Amino acid sequence: MTDVPTQVRINEEGPREGFQFERGPIATDAKIALVDALSKTGLRQIQVCSFVNPERVPGMADADAVATGFARHEGVAYTALWLNERGFERALAVGTLDLAGSISMGASEAFMWRNQNRGFAENTVVQDRMVKRYLAAGLKVERASMMAAFGCNFEGDVPVARVLDLVEETMRIAAANGVAIKVYSFADTMAWATPDRVRRLVGAVRERWPELQVALHLHDTRGMGIANAYAGLEMGVAIFDASIAGLGGCPFAGHTAAAGNVCTEDLAFLCAEMGIETGLDLEALSAAARLAEEVVGHPLPGSVMKAGSLAARRRELA
Amino acid sequence: MTDVPTQVRINEEGPREGFQFERGPIATDAKIALVDALSKTGLRQIQVCSFVNPERVPGMADADAVATGFARHEGVAYTALWLNERGFERALAVGTLDLAGSISMGASEAFMWRNQNRGFAENTVVQDRMVKRYLAAGLKVERASMMAAFGCNFEGDVPVARVLDLVEETMRIAAANGVAIKVYSFADTMAWATPDRVRRLVGAVRERWPELQVALHLHDTRGMGIANAYAGLEMGVAIFDASIAGLGGCPFAGHTAAAGNVCTEDLAFLCAEMGIETGLDLEALSAAARLAEEVVGHPLPGSVMKAGSLAARRRELA
Repeated sequence: MTDVPTQVRINEEGPREGFQFERGPIATDAKIALVDALSKTGLRQIQVCSFVNPERVPGMADADAVATGFARHEGVAYTALWLNERGFERALAVGTLDLAGSISMGASEAFMWRNQNRGFAENTVVQDRMVKRYLAAGLKVERASMMAAFGCNFEGDVPVARVLDLVEETMRIAAANGVAIKVYSFADTMAWATPDRVRRLVGAVRERWPELQVALHLHDTRGMGIANAYAGLEMGVAIFDASIAGLGGCPFAGHTAAAGNVCTEDLAFLCAEMGIETGLDLEALSAAARLAEEVVGHPLPGSVMKAGSLAARRRELA
Repeated sequence: MTDVPTQVRINEEGPREGFQFERGPIATDAKIALVDALSKTGLRQIQVCSFVNPERVPGMADADAVATGFARHEGVAYTALWLNERGFERALAVGTLDLAGSISMGASEAFMWRNQNRGFAENTVVQDRMVKRYLAAGLKVERASMMAAFGCNFEGDVPVARVLDLVEETMRIAAANGVAIKVYSFADTMAWATPDRVRRLVGAVRERWPELQVALHLHDTRGMGIANAYAGLEMGVAIFDASIAGLGGCPFAGHTAAAGNVCTEDLAFLCAEMGIETGLDLEALSAAARLAEEVVGHPLPGSVMKAGSLAARRRELA
C-alpha cells in the first residue's frame, strides 16, 4: 500500500551546519550549550563540529574545544565532519567523538573543486586511502554520502544516471577494501531538489540496490526542504539529516541567504503528524531551536518553534 | 498515471493577507506600489484589500484608497475580501474591483465567532441572504470557500466528514438560489494541514463531487505550506491562493509568528520545476517579493527571492 516508514531517524547537523555558516563570532560556551540542549531531545546522533581549515571556515577554529566541551548523554552518538585525512586525524585525536568511516563522493566536479579542492579522479584515490585509514583505526565503514546529488550552482542539473554511476564507483571502492556500504546519504547541497527529483533519484537507487538504506541530507534554500522530505518519506526513506531551527548552509555553495538544512523540529513535526515514530520530544526540540536563535543572535527559519506543535494545542484543548 | 495538472492558476492574496497582519502603519502609496508591481508578473487575480472593521483590522482602514489607487493591468482581475453585507456594499461602492459572489463557510464554529462574530446557524442565514444580494447586484455566484477546513487552534482537528457536510450545506444554499458552485476553496487558516490531510480531504471531496474544481488556500505557519501544496498538486488541485514573499496571516488565528500564505514565488518555482504552466514570470515575482520586504520594512519568509530560481542559474551556466 505505502512505502512510508513507521520509524524515522533524524540525525542532527545543526551545530556543524550552523557554526560553519554563521558570520559569528559565537562563543565556544554557547556552541556547547546548544549541543547539550540537543542531547536532551531524544536525538540519537549529533554532529557537533567539522575539522576543516579554520582559515577557510573561521567558525570551526574552536572545533577541538567544542568536541571536548560538551556533556555526553547516554544513547547519543556525537559525530563530526572532515573532508580529508588531516581533518580525520584531528577528529580522532580529540578522543571524545563517536567516529565512523564513510566514503564521501560528490556529483559535481565544479563543486568538489570549490569545497574539497579536488576533482573526481583524485577523490577516488583519496577515498580509497581513507577507507584503509578508517579500517586501520578500527572504525567500521558502512556509510557513504554524495554531495550535490541533485544539482549544482556551478554546473547545473545532475542526471540520475551520473548518481548511479557514482554509487557504483562507491561500491567498487568499498569492495576493493572488503567492506560493504549499508547506508547511502544523498545531499542536496545547493537546493536543486524538488519532490519529483527526490522520487526519481530514490526510486532509481532503490531499484538497483534494494538492500541499501537511502538517507537524505536536504537543504531548504529554495523553500522545498519539507516537501522534498515528504517525497522521501513516501519513497521509504527512513534516515534524514536535519538542522535545529534550520541553521546553517555550506559556505562554498554560492548562497548568501538562509541556506540551512531542512529544519529538525519541523521535520519531526511532520513525522509526528503522519504517525511516524522518531523518538523525539517536539517541545524540547523547539526549546533547543529557540536557544539556537539566541546563540546566533538573529531569527532562524524554523516554523514549529514559533507557531507551536499541534500536539501541544491538542493537549491545551483537551 | 498521474493527477498532476498541466496548468495551475495562482491567485495572489499578498496585499490583503499582508496588510491585515503587519503591525504597520504602511503608507497607502507603498501598498499601491506593491499591487502595481504584482500586476506585471503574469498573475491573473490579485486580492488588493479587505473591507472589514478598521477598528478590528487597522491595516485595512485605507482599503478604499488602495482599491481606487492602483493602475489596472489588462488581463488581471482585482478582488477584495469581505465578511458581511456591509463589507460587500463598500467593495461594490468603490467601483474599481472585479467582484464575484461567493459562499463563505467555516469548519470551526469557535473560529467563526472570533473571525466573523457568528456561529454556524447564523452563517447559513447570512450566506443565503448574501447570495441573493450578489445576484441582485448582477454578480455570478460560482465559488465557495471554507475556513479552518483542516483544523482550528481553538477547537482542534476538523474531521473530513464535517467538511463534506458543510460542502453539502453550501450546495443546498446555492441550489435554493438557483446557482451552482464550480470552484470550492478549502482554507488551512490556522495551519493544521499536512500533506496526508490534504490528500484525504481533496480525495474525499473529489470522490463525492467529481465535477467540482478544488482550490487550496494554505498557510505556512508550521512550515508545511509547500509540502501541502505539492500534495494538492498530486491530487489534481489546479487553483491555489498564495501570498508574495509569504506575506500575511489572519489576525484572529491566534498566531504571533509569521503566519502567511504559502509563498507565491516559491510555489511558482515548484510548478515551474515540475513542468506545470502558471503563466508567471518568476524573476518579476521575486522582484515584487523583494519590494514587499521593503514595504513592510523587515525580512519575509520567501526563499526563491533570496536564493534565485534554478531557471536563472541554468541561463547563467548555459
